[in-house]
Amino acid sequence: MKSGNMNIGVFDSGFGGLTVLRALLERLPGANYIYLGDTARLPYGAKSQATVARYAVSSAHFLVEQQADYLVIACNTASALALDAIRDAVPVPVIGVIETGANAAQAATETGDVLVMATAATVDSHAYSAACHERGLRAIEKACPLLVPLVEEGWVDHPVTEEVLRIYLSELLEESAQAAIRPDTLVLGCTHYPLLRTNIERALPASIRVIDSAEATAAQVAAALCLPNSSDNPDGNPHTRRFYATDSVTKFRILGTRFLGQAIAHVELIDLGG
Amino acid sequence: MKSGNMNIGVFDSGFGGLTVLRALLERLPGANYIYLGDTARLPYGAKSQATVARYAVSSAHFLVEQQADYLVIACNTASALALDAIRDAVPVPVIGVIETGANAAQAATETGDVLVMATAATVDSHAYSAACHERGLRAIEKACPLLVPLVEEGWVDHPVTEEVLRIYLSELLEESAQAAIRPDTLVLGCTHYPLLRTNIERALPASIRVIDSAEATAAQVAAALCLPNSSDNPDGNPHTRRFYATDSVTKFRILGTRFLGQAIAHVELIDLGG
Repeated sequence: MKSGNMNIGVFDSGFGGLTVLRALLERLPGANYIYLGDTARLPYGAKSQATVARYAVSSAHFLVEQQADYLVIACNTASALALDAIRDAVPVPVIGVIETGANAAQAATETGDVLVMATAATVDSHAYSAACHERGLRAIEKACPLLVPLVEEGWVDHPVTEEVLRIYLSELLEESAQAAIRPDTLVLGCTHYPLLRTNIERALPASIRVIDSAEATAAQVAAALCLPNSSDNPDGNPHTRRFYATDSVTKFRILGTRFLGQAIAHVELIDLGG
Repeated sequence: MKSGNMNIGVFDSGFGGLTVLRALLERLPGANYIYLGDTARLPYGAKSQATVARYAVSSAHFLVEQQADYLVIACNTASALALDAIRDAVPVPVIGVIETGANAAQAATETGDVLVMATAATVDSHAYSAACHERGLRAIEKACPLLVPLVEEGWVDHPVTEEVLRIYLSELLEESAQAAIRPDTLVLGCTHYPLLRTNIERALPASIRVIDSAEATAAQVAAALCLPNSSDNPDGNPHTRRFYATDSVTKFRILGTRFLGQAIAHVELIDLGG
Protein backbone atom coordinates (compact mmCIF):
# COMPACT_ATOMS: atom_id res chain seq x y z
CA MET A 1 0.00 0.00 0.00
CA LYS A 2 1.24 3.48 -0.75
CA SER A 3 1.45 5.70 2.31
CA GLY A 4 -0.51 8.35 0.41
CA ASN A 5 -3.53 6.07 0.55
CA MET A 6 -3.27 5.22 4.25
CA ASN A 7 -5.39 6.79 6.98
CA ILE A 8 -3.52 6.41 10.26
CA GLY A 9 -5.54 7.07 13.43
CA VAL A 10 -3.56 8.29 16.44
CA PHE A 11 -5.15 8.28 19.88
CA ASP A 12 -4.17 9.74 23.24
CA SER A 13 -6.07 10.94 26.28
CA GLY A 14 -4.55 14.38 25.67
CA PHE A 15 -1.75 16.22 23.87
CA GLY A 16 1.24 13.99 24.58
CA GLY A 17 0.41 11.66 21.70
CA LEU A 18 1.17 14.56 19.36
CA THR A 19 4.88 13.75 19.91
CA VAL A 20 4.11 10.35 18.35
CA LEU A 21 2.23 12.03 15.49
CA ARG A 22 5.22 14.36 15.03
CA ALA A 23 7.54 11.36 14.65
CA LEU A 24 5.06 9.71 12.25
CA LEU A 25 4.86 12.89 10.13
CA GLU A 26 8.65 12.94 9.88
CA ARG A 27 8.90 9.30 8.91
CA LEU A 28 5.70 8.83 6.90
CA PRO A 29 4.67 12.26 5.63
CA GLY A 30 2.72 10.73 2.75
CA ALA A 31 -0.03 9.20 4.94
CA ASN A 32 -3.23 10.86 6.08
CA TYR A 33 -3.60 11.30 9.84
CA ILE A 34 -6.58 11.51 12.16
CA TYR A 35 -5.63 12.49 15.73
CA LEU A 36 -8.02 12.19 18.67
CA GLY A 37 -7.27 13.64 22.11
CA ASP A 38 -9.89 12.53 24.64
CA THR A 39 -9.23 15.69 26.65
CA ALA A 40 -12.61 15.78 28.43
CA ARG A 41 -11.86 12.49 30.16
CA LEU A 42 -8.13 12.89 30.88
CA PRO A 43 -6.13 11.93 32.79
CA TYR A 44 -6.70 8.22 32.34
CA GLY A 45 -3.93 7.42 34.84
CA ALA A 46 -6.01 7.44 38.02
CA LYS A 47 -8.91 5.47 36.56
CA SER A 48 -9.77 1.78 36.78
CA GLN A 49 -8.98 -0.67 33.99
CA ALA A 50 -12.69 -1.05 33.11
CA THR A 51 -13.15 2.71 32.77
CA VAL A 52 -9.96 3.22 30.74
CA ALA A 53 -10.95 0.35 28.43
CA ARG A 54 -14.42 1.83 27.93
CA TYR A 55 -13.02 5.28 27.12
CA ALA A 56 -10.28 3.91 24.84
CA VAL A 57 -12.62 1.58 22.93
CA SER A 58 -15.11 4.41 22.27
CA SER A 59 -12.20 6.57 21.05
CA ALA A 60 -10.94 3.75 18.79
CA HIS A 61 -14.44 3.28 17.35
CA PHE A 62 -14.57 6.98 16.54
CA LEU A 63 -11.26 6.80 14.63
CA VAL A 64 -12.40 3.74 12.66
CA GLU A 65 -15.65 5.56 11.80
CA GLN A 66 -13.42 8.33 10.44
CA GLN A 67 -11.96 5.71 8.05
CA ALA A 68 -8.73 4.97 9.95
CA ASP A 69 -7.02 1.88 8.42
CA TYR A 70 -4.54 1.52 11.26
CA LEU A 71 -4.57 2.65 14.90
CA VAL A 72 -1.65 3.93 16.95
CA ILE A 73 -2.42 4.03 20.69
CA ALA A 74 -0.13 6.92 21.62
CA CYS A 75 -1.18 6.83 25.28
CA ASN A 76 0.78 4.84 27.83
CA THR A 77 -2.17 4.22 30.18
CA ALA A 78 -4.46 3.03 27.37
CA SER A 79 -1.64 0.88 25.96
CA ALA A 80 -1.06 -0.63 29.42
CA LEU A 81 -4.69 -1.25 30.35
CA ALA A 82 -6.76 -1.43 27.18
CA LEU A 83 -4.74 -2.68 24.20
CA ASP A 84 -6.40 -6.11 24.08
CA ALA A 85 -9.87 -4.56 24.52
CA ILE A 86 -9.20 -2.17 21.61
CA ARG A 87 -7.88 -5.00 19.41
CA ASP A 88 -11.01 -7.04 20.16
CA ALA A 89 -13.26 -4.07 19.36
CA VAL A 90 -12.00 -2.81 16.00
CA PRO A 91 -11.37 -4.52 12.63
CA VAL A 92 -8.04 -2.75 11.91
CA PRO A 93 -4.48 -3.37 13.17
CA VAL A 94 -3.60 -1.66 16.47
CA ILE A 95 -0.14 -0.83 17.87
CA GLY A 96 0.62 0.60 21.33
CA VAL A 97 3.51 2.70 22.63
CA ILE A 98 4.54 0.32 25.41
CA GLU A 99 5.23 -2.63 23.11
CA THR A 100 7.06 -0.39 20.62
CA GLY A 101 9.19 1.11 23.42
CA ALA A 102 10.04 -2.35 24.77
CA ASN A 103 10.85 -3.60 21.25
CA ALA A 104 13.21 -0.67 20.71
CA ALA A 105 14.86 -1.26 24.09
CA GLN A 106 15.38 -4.91 23.20
CA ALA A 107 17.03 -3.92 19.92
CA ALA A 108 19.26 -1.32 21.58
CA THR A 109 20.47 -2.95 24.80
CA GLU A 110 23.59 -5.07 25.04
CA THR A 111 23.52 -5.64 28.80
CA GLY A 112 19.79 -6.53 28.86
CA ASP A 113 19.27 -3.99 31.63
CA VAL A 114 16.85 -1.16 30.94
CA LEU A 115 15.70 1.96 32.82
CA VAL A 116 12.20 3.39 32.31
CA MET A 117 10.98 6.89 33.22
CA ALA A 118 7.19 7.21 33.25
CA THR A 119 4.20 8.70 35.05
CA ALA A 120 3.13 7.28 38.41
CA ALA A 121 0.13 5.55 36.81
CA THR A 122 2.25 3.81 34.17
CA VAL A 123 4.84 2.75 36.75
CA ASP A 124 2.10 1.45 39.08
CA SER A 125 0.77 -0.69 36.22
CA HIS A 126 4.28 -2.24 35.74
CA ALA A 127 3.39 -2.57 32.06
CA TYR A 128 6.93 -1.65 30.91
CA SER A 129 8.50 -4.10 33.37
CA ALA A 130 6.20 -6.85 32.11
CA ALA A 131 6.87 -6.01 28.44
CA CYS A 132 10.64 -5.92 29.08
CA HIS A 133 10.50 -9.18 31.06
CA GLU A 134 8.68 -10.89 28.15
CA ARG A 135 11.61 -9.88 25.95
CA GLY A 136 14.22 -11.26 28.38
CA LEU A 137 15.22 -7.83 29.73
CA ARG A 138 15.46 -6.55 33.29
CA ALA A 139 13.85 -3.15 33.87
CA ILE A 140 13.82 -0.61 36.67
CA GLU A 141 10.99 1.91 36.48
CA LYS A 142 10.95 5.39 37.99
CA ALA A 143 7.80 7.48 38.48
CA CYS A 144 8.52 11.11 37.52
CA PRO A 145 5.23 12.90 38.31
CA LEU A 146 6.62 16.44 38.02
CA LEU A 147 7.78 16.14 34.41
CA VAL A 148 4.34 16.37 32.75
CA PRO A 149 3.35 19.56 34.62
CA LEU A 150 6.81 21.07 33.94
CA VAL A 151 6.43 20.38 30.20
CA GLU A 152 2.85 21.72 30.22
CA GLU A 153 4.07 24.87 32.05
CA GLY A 154 6.51 25.32 29.15
CA TRP A 155 9.57 25.09 31.43
CA VAL A 156 11.57 22.85 29.10
CA ASP A 157 14.86 24.76 29.12
CA HIS A 158 14.56 25.89 32.71
CA PRO A 159 16.85 25.50 35.73
CA VAL A 160 14.00 24.06 37.81
CA THR A 161 13.47 21.29 35.24
CA GLU A 162 17.23 20.59 35.11
CA GLU A 163 17.25 20.21 38.90
CA VAL A 164 14.15 17.97 38.95
CA LEU A 165 15.71 15.75 36.25
CA ARG A 166 19.00 15.61 38.16
CA ILE A 167 17.13 14.40 41.28
CA TYR A 168 14.96 11.83 39.46
CA LEU A 169 17.87 10.42 37.44
CA SER A 170 20.24 10.23 40.41
CA GLU A 171 17.55 8.30 42.36
CA LEU A 172 17.03 5.98 39.38
CA LEU A 173 20.76 5.34 38.91
CA GLU A 174 21.19 4.75 42.65
CA GLU A 175 18.37 2.23 42.58
CA SER A 176 19.93 0.41 39.62
CA ALA A 177 23.31 0.36 41.41
CA GLN A 178 21.67 -1.18 44.49
CA ALA A 179 20.02 -3.80 42.26
CA ALA A 180 23.47 -4.46 40.75
CA ILE A 181 22.24 -4.10 37.19
CA ARG A 182 24.19 -2.41 34.39
CA PRO A 183 21.70 -0.36 32.36
CA ASP A 184 22.77 0.86 28.93
CA THR A 185 19.31 1.96 27.74
CA LEU A 186 16.67 4.32 29.12
CA VAL A 187 13.12 4.35 27.72
CA LEU A 188 11.10 7.59 27.77
CA GLY A 189 7.87 5.94 28.88
CA CYS A 190 5.57 8.94 28.59
CA THR A 191 4.57 10.80 25.45
CA HIS A 192 5.40 14.14 27.11
CA TYR A 193 9.04 13.24 27.69
CA PRO A 194 10.39 13.57 24.12
CA LEU A 195 10.24 17.35 24.72
CA LEU A 196 12.84 16.78 27.48
CA ARG A 197 15.01 14.33 25.54
CA THR A 198 18.01 16.65 25.16
CA ASN A 199 17.87 17.61 28.85
CA ILE A 200 17.67 13.94 29.89
CA GLU A 201 20.57 12.93 27.62
CA ARG A 202 22.65 15.76 29.10
CA ALA A 203 21.95 14.55 32.65
CA LEU A 204 22.76 10.87 31.95
CA PRO A 205 26.13 9.10 31.71
CA ALA A 206 27.20 8.81 28.05
CA SER A 207 27.03 5.01 28.35
CA ILE A 208 23.21 5.11 28.55
CA ARG A 209 21.28 5.48 25.33
CA VAL A 210 17.85 7.14 25.34
CA ILE A 211 14.94 5.44 23.55
CA ASP A 212 12.23 7.86 22.50
CA SER A 213 9.07 5.73 22.31
CA ALA A 214 7.53 8.23 19.88
CA GLU A 215 10.33 7.65 17.36
CA ALA A 216 10.33 3.93 18.10
CA THR A 217 6.59 3.79 17.41
CA ALA A 218 6.91 5.65 14.10
CA ALA A 219 9.68 3.30 12.96
CA GLN A 220 7.63 0.23 13.85
CA VAL A 221 4.48 1.58 12.18
CA ALA A 222 6.49 2.12 9.00
CA ALA A 223 7.90 -1.40 9.23
CA ALA A 224 4.48 -2.97 9.97
CA LEU A 225 2.91 -1.20 7.00
CA CYS A 226 5.91 -2.02 4.78
CA LEU A 227 6.04 1.66 3.88
CA PRO A 228 9.23 3.37 2.75
CA ASN A 229 10.30 6.63 4.39
CA SER A 230 8.92 8.90 1.78
CA SER A 231 7.08 12.09 1.18
CA ASP A 232 6.05 10.93 -2.27
CA ASN A 233 2.50 11.69 -3.08
CA PRO A 234 2.06 9.79 -6.33
CA ASP A 235 -1.71 10.07 -6.58
CA GLY A 236 -1.55 13.84 -6.29
CA ASN A 237 -4.24 13.99 -3.57
CA PRO A 238 -3.39 16.39 -0.77
CA HIS A 239 -2.46 14.72 2.51
CA THR A 240 -4.93 15.37 5.29
CA ARG A 241 -4.25 15.91 8.98
CA ARG A 242 -7.40 16.09 11.06
CA PHE A 243 -7.51 16.87 14.79
CA TYR A 244 -10.36 16.04 17.17
CA ALA A 245 -10.67 16.74 20.89
CA THR A 246 -13.43 16.08 23.42
CA ASP A 247 -12.90 19.34 25.39
CA SER A 248 -11.13 22.70 25.36
CA VAL A 249 -10.28 23.15 21.67
CA THR A 250 -8.40 26.39 22.34
CA LYS A 251 -6.13 24.78 24.93
CA PHE A 252 -5.57 21.89 22.51
CA ARG A 253 -4.41 24.25 19.75
CA ILE A 254 -2.08 26.21 22.05
CA LEU A 255 -0.51 23.33 23.99
CA GLY A 256 -0.71 20.94 21.04
CA THR A 257 1.37 23.16 18.79
CA ARG A 258 4.23 22.81 21.28
CA PHE A 259 4.04 19.00 21.21
CA LEU A 260 3.56 18.70 17.45
CA GLY A 261 6.31 21.22 16.65
CA GLN A 262 4.06 22.94 14.11
CA ALA A 263 0.89 25.01 14.19
CA ILE A 264 -2.46 23.25 14.52
CA ALA A 265 -4.88 25.36 12.51
CA HIS A 266 -8.14 23.63 13.32
CA VAL A 267 -9.38 21.26 16.01
CA GLU A 268 -12.90 19.86 15.94
CA LEU A 269 -14.78 19.36 19.20
CA ILE A 270 -16.56 16.01 19.43
CA ASP A 271 -18.71 14.37 22.10
CA LEU A 272 -17.98 10.76 23.01
CA GLY A 273 -20.31 10.88 26.04
CA GLY A 274 -19.27 9.80 29.52
CA MET B 1 -27.33 23.52 68.24
CA LYS B 2 -24.45 21.82 69.98
CA SER B 3 -21.58 20.97 67.68
CA GLY B 4 -21.66 17.42 69.04
CA ASN B 5 -25.01 16.95 67.31
CA MET B 6 -23.98 18.39 63.95
CA ASN B 7 -23.08 16.30 60.91
CA ILE B 8 -20.91 18.44 58.63
CA GLY B 9 -20.40 17.13 55.09
CA VAL B 10 -17.17 18.18 53.38
CA PHE B 11 -16.76 17.67 49.65
CA ASP B 12 -13.81 17.93 47.27
CA SER B 13 -12.91 16.30 43.96
CA GLY B 14 -9.84 14.85 45.70
CA PHE B 15 -7.62 15.16 48.78
CA GLY B 16 -7.08 18.91 48.97
CA GLY B 17 -10.34 19.47 50.82
CA LEU B 18 -8.81 17.56 53.72
CA THR B 19 -6.93 20.79 54.58
CA VAL B 20 -10.38 22.36 55.09
CA LEU B 21 -11.47 19.39 57.20
CA ARG B 22 -8.25 19.75 59.21
CA ALA B 23 -9.09 23.39 59.97
CA LEU B 24 -12.67 22.41 60.85
CA LEU B 25 -11.44 19.67 63.21
CA GLU B 26 -9.23 22.21 64.98
CA ARG B 27 -11.99 24.78 65.32
CA LEU B 28 -15.05 22.53 65.77
CA PRO B 29 -13.79 19.20 67.08
CA GLY B 30 -17.15 18.41 68.64
CA ALA B 31 -19.00 17.97 65.31
CA ASN B 32 -19.31 14.78 63.29
CA TYR B 33 -17.74 14.88 59.83
CA ILE B 34 -18.45 13.08 56.58
CA TYR B 35 -15.78 13.67 53.91
CA LEU B 36 -16.25 12.75 50.26
CA GLY B 37 -13.41 12.85 47.72
CA ASP B 38 -14.74 12.26 44.18
CA THR B 39 -11.37 10.85 43.18
CA ALA B 40 -12.63 8.77 40.24
CA ARG B 41 -13.75 11.90 38.42
CA LEU B 42 -10.95 14.32 39.35
CA PRO B 43 -9.65 16.71 38.25
CA TYR B 44 -12.75 18.84 37.80
CA GLY B 45 -10.66 21.75 36.52
CA ALA B 46 -10.62 20.84 32.83
CA LYS B 47 -14.31 19.97 32.64
CA SER B 48 -17.30 21.99 31.46
CA GLN B 49 -19.63 23.77 33.88
CA ALA B 50 -22.47 21.32 33.11
CA THR B 51 -20.28 18.30 33.88
CA VAL B 52 -18.82 19.80 37.07
CA ALA B 53 -22.32 20.72 38.26
CA ARG B 54 -23.59 17.19 37.58
CA TYR B 55 -20.67 15.62 39.47
CA ALA B 56 -20.89 18.07 42.38
CA VAL B 57 -24.66 17.74 42.74
CA SER B 58 -24.46 13.93 42.84
CA SER B 59 -21.71 14.22 45.47
CA ALA B 60 -23.80 16.66 47.52
CA HIS B 61 -26.82 14.32 47.34
CA PHE B 62 -24.64 11.49 48.66
CA LEU B 63 -23.54 13.57 51.66
CA VAL B 64 -27.12 14.58 52.46
CA GLU B 65 -28.18 10.92 52.23
CA GLN B 66 -25.45 10.27 54.84
CA GLN B 67 -27.34 12.71 57.12
CA ALA B 68 -25.16 15.78 56.58
CA ASP B 69 -26.87 18.86 58.11
CA TYR B 70 -24.52 21.33 56.49
CA LEU B 71 -22.29 21.15 53.40
CA VAL B 72 -18.84 22.64 52.93
CA ILE B 73 -17.74 22.69 49.28
CA ALA B 74 -13.99 22.42 49.85
CA CYS B 75 -13.22 22.38 46.13
CA ASN B 76 -12.40 25.57 44.27
CA THR B 77 -13.66 24.39 40.87
CA ALA B 78 -16.98 23.15 42.27
CA SER B 79 -17.33 26.36 44.31
CA ALA B 80 -16.65 28.42 41.17
CA LEU B 81 -18.88 26.52 38.77
CA ALA B 82 -21.52 24.65 40.75
CA LEU B 83 -22.37 26.39 44.04
CA ASP B 84 -25.79 27.62 42.88
CA ALA B 85 -26.63 24.22 41.37
CA ILE B 86 -25.74 22.50 44.66
CA ARG B 87 -27.77 25.01 46.70
CA ASP B 88 -30.77 24.40 44.42
CA ALA B 89 -30.39 20.62 44.74
CA VAL B 90 -30.11 20.03 48.49
CA PRO B 91 -32.23 21.09 51.49
CA VAL B 92 -29.30 22.02 53.76
CA PRO B 93 -27.09 25.13 53.95
CA VAL B 94 -24.07 25.13 51.63
CA ILE B 95 -20.87 27.17 51.91
CA GLY B 96 -18.03 27.31 49.34
CA VAL B 97 -14.32 28.06 49.69
CA ILE B 98 -14.24 30.92 47.18
CA GLU B 99 -16.79 33.05 49.02
CA THR B 100 -15.13 32.34 52.39
CA GLY B 101 -11.69 33.24 50.97
CA ALA B 102 -13.05 36.47 49.51
CA ASN B 103 -14.83 37.31 52.79
CA ALA B 104 -11.60 36.79 54.72
CA ALA B 105 -9.66 38.94 52.23
CA GLN B 106 -12.25 41.71 52.62
CA ALA B 107 -11.89 41.58 56.41
CA ALA B 108 -8.08 41.58 56.26
CA THR B 109 -7.19 44.13 53.57
CA GLU B 110 -6.70 47.81 54.25
CA THR B 111 -5.63 48.82 50.73
CA GLY B 112 -8.46 46.88 49.03
CA ASP B 113 -5.90 45.22 46.76
CA VAL B 114 -5.65 41.44 46.90
CA LEU B 115 -3.45 38.79 45.29
CA VAL B 116 -4.74 35.27 44.60
CA MET B 117 -2.68 32.14 43.90
CA ALA B 118 -4.72 29.29 42.39
CA THR B 119 -4.75 26.50 39.83
CA ALA B 120 -5.02 27.33 36.12
CA ALA B 121 -8.66 26.19 36.05
CA THR B 122 -9.66 28.42 38.98
CA VAL B 123 -7.81 31.41 37.52
CA ASP B 124 -9.41 30.81 34.10
CA SER B 125 -12.84 30.91 35.76
CA HIS B 126 -12.00 34.32 37.34
CA ALA B 127 -14.26 33.31 40.24
CA TYR B 128 -11.95 34.90 42.84
CA SER B 129 -11.74 38.14 40.85
CA ALA B 130 -15.52 38.25 40.60
CA ALA B 131 -16.00 37.49 44.31
CA CYS B 132 -13.43 40.15 45.26
CA HIS B 133 -14.99 42.67 42.87
CA GLU B 134 -18.44 42.09 44.45
CA ARG B 135 -16.85 43.04 47.77
CA GLY B 136 -15.27 46.23 46.39
CA LEU B 137 -11.75 44.76 46.17
CA ARG B 138 -9.29 44.65 43.29
CA ALA B 139 -7.66 41.27 42.71
CA ILE B 140 -4.80 39.95 40.62
CA GLU B 141 -4.83 36.19 40.10
CA LYS B 142 -1.83 33.99 39.34
CA ALA B 143 -2.06 30.43 37.99
CA CYS B 144 0.49 28.23 39.77
CA PRO B 145 0.10 24.84 38.04
CA LEU B 146 3.27 23.28 39.48
CA LEU B 147 2.30 23.65 43.14
CA VAL B 148 -0.26 20.83 43.29
CA PRO B 149 2.10 18.24 41.76
CA LEU B 150 4.95 19.46 44.04
CA VAL B 151 2.73 19.02 47.12
CA GLU B 152 1.53 15.61 45.88
CA GLU B 153 5.17 14.58 45.29
CA GLY B 154 5.78 15.44 48.97
CA TRP B 155 8.38 18.11 48.11
CA VAL B 156 7.07 20.66 50.60
CA ASP B 157 10.37 21.61 52.25
CA HIS B 158 12.44 21.25 49.12
CA PRO B 159 14.76 23.63 47.26
CA VAL B 160 12.88 23.03 43.98
CA THR B 161 9.61 24.14 45.59
CA GLU B 162 11.32 27.20 47.11
CA GLU B 163 12.59 28.16 43.64
CA VAL B 164 9.21 27.59 41.95
CA LEU B 165 7.51 29.73 44.62
CA ARG B 166 10.15 32.46 44.21
CA ILE B 167 9.44 32.54 40.45
CA TYR B 168 5.65 32.53 40.75
CA LEU B 169 5.60 35.17 43.49
CA SER B 170 8.06 37.47 41.74
CA GLU B 171 5.91 37.30 38.58
CA LEU B 172 2.79 38.04 40.63
CA LEU B 173 4.41 40.98 42.44
CA GLU B 174 5.74 42.35 39.14
CA GLU B 175 2.27 42.16 37.64
CA SER B 176 0.77 43.98 40.61
CA ALA B 177 3.47 46.68 40.36
CA GLN B 178 2.65 47.15 36.66
CA ALA B 179 -1.04 47.46 37.54
CA ALA B 180 -0.04 50.04 40.16
CA ILE B 181 -1.97 48.32 42.92
CA ARG B 182 -0.75 47.99 46.53
CA PRO B 183 -1.63 44.50 47.71
CA ASP B 184 -1.52 43.77 51.44
CA THR B 185 -3.30 40.40 51.31
CA LEU B 186 -2.71 37.15 49.42
CA VAL B 187 -5.37 34.43 49.25
CA LEU B 188 -4.32 30.78 48.96
CA GLY B 189 -6.95 29.88 46.37
CA CYS B 190 -6.35 26.15 46.23
CA THR B 191 -6.93 23.60 48.97
CA HIS B 192 -3.45 22.12 48.39
CA TYR B 193 -1.66 25.38 49.19
CA PRO B 194 -2.08 25.46 52.99
CA LEU B 195 0.69 22.82 53.06
CA LEU B 196 2.97 25.49 51.51
CA ARG B 197 1.80 28.37 53.70
CA THR B 198 5.04 28.76 55.67
CA ASN B 199 7.10 28.63 52.46
CA ILE B 200 4.87 31.24 50.81
CA GLU B 201 4.99 33.56 53.83
CA ARG B 202 8.78 33.28 53.84
CA ALA B 203 8.96 34.27 50.16
CA LEU B 204 6.61 37.28 50.47
CA PRO B 205 7.30 40.82 51.73
CA ALA B 206 6.27 41.12 55.40
CA SER B 207 3.66 43.71 54.40
CA ILE B 208 1.52 41.05 52.69
CA ARG B 209 -0.68 38.89 54.88
CA VAL B 210 -1.57 35.34 53.78
CA ILE B 211 -5.21 34.20 53.92
CA ASP B 212 -5.57 30.44 54.18
CA SER B 213 -9.02 29.72 52.72
CA ALA B 214 -9.17 26.47 54.72
CA GLU B 215 -8.90 28.39 58.01
CA ALA B 216 -11.19 31.13 56.71
CA THR B 217 -13.80 28.52 55.80
CA ALA B 218 -13.65 26.85 59.21
CA ALA B 219 -14.06 30.21 60.96
CA GLN B 220 -17.07 31.11 58.81
CA VAL B 221 -18.69 27.69 59.28
CA ALA B 222 -18.37 28.14 63.05
CA ALA B 223 -19.88 31.63 62.80
CA ALA B 224 -22.72 30.49 60.50
CA LEU B 225 -23.61 27.64 62.83
CA CYS B 226 -23.25 29.88 65.92
CA LEU B 227 -21.00 27.25 67.39
CA PRO B 228 -18.36 28.04 70.00
CA ASN B 229 -14.80 26.79 69.53
CA SER B 230 -15.09 23.78 71.71
CA SER B 231 -14.19 20.19 72.06
CA ASP B 232 -16.97 19.67 74.56
CA ASN B 233 -18.89 16.51 74.02
CA PRO B 234 -21.74 16.98 76.45
CA ASP B 235 -23.95 14.17 75.23
CA GLY B 236 -21.12 11.66 75.64
CA ASN B 237 -21.59 10.22 72.14
CA PRO B 238 -18.30 9.61 70.34
CA HIS B 239 -17.59 12.01 67.46
CA THR B 240 -17.53 10.32 64.10
CA ARG B 241 -15.28 11.06 61.14
CA ARG B 242 -16.22 9.11 58.01
CA PHE B 243 -14.25 9.15 54.76
CA TYR B 244 -15.58 8.18 51.33
CA ALA B 245 -13.81 8.11 47.97
CA THR B 246 -14.90 7.10 44.48
CA ASP B 247 -11.55 5.53 43.47
CA SER B 248 -8.17 4.40 44.79
CA VAL B 249 -8.81 4.04 48.53
CA THR B 250 -5.17 3.18 49.25
CA LYS B 251 -3.89 6.34 47.56
CA PHE B 252 -6.51 8.33 49.46
CA ARG B 253 -5.28 6.98 52.82
CA ILE B 254 -1.61 7.62 52.04
CA LEU B 255 -1.90 11.07 50.42
CA GLY B 256 -4.85 12.08 52.56
CA THR B 257 -2.96 11.58 55.81
CA ARG B 258 -0.49 14.24 54.67
CA PHE B 259 -3.27 16.76 53.98
CA LEU B 260 -5.27 15.98 57.12
CA GLY B 261 -2.21 15.98 59.38
CA GLN B 262 -3.38 12.78 61.07
CA ALA B 263 -3.80 9.15 60.08
CA ILE B 264 -6.91 8.13 58.14
CA ALA B 265 -7.70 4.62 59.33
CA HIS B 266 -10.53 3.72 56.99
CA VAL B 267 -11.84 4.99 53.65
CA GLU B 268 -14.96 3.52 52.08
CA LEU B 269 -15.13 3.14 48.30
CA ILE B 270 -18.43 4.29 46.80
CA ASP B 271 -19.80 4.43 43.25
CA LEU B 272 -21.48 7.62 42.11
CA GLY B 273 -21.59 6.46 38.45
CA GLY B 274 -20.30 8.66 35.65
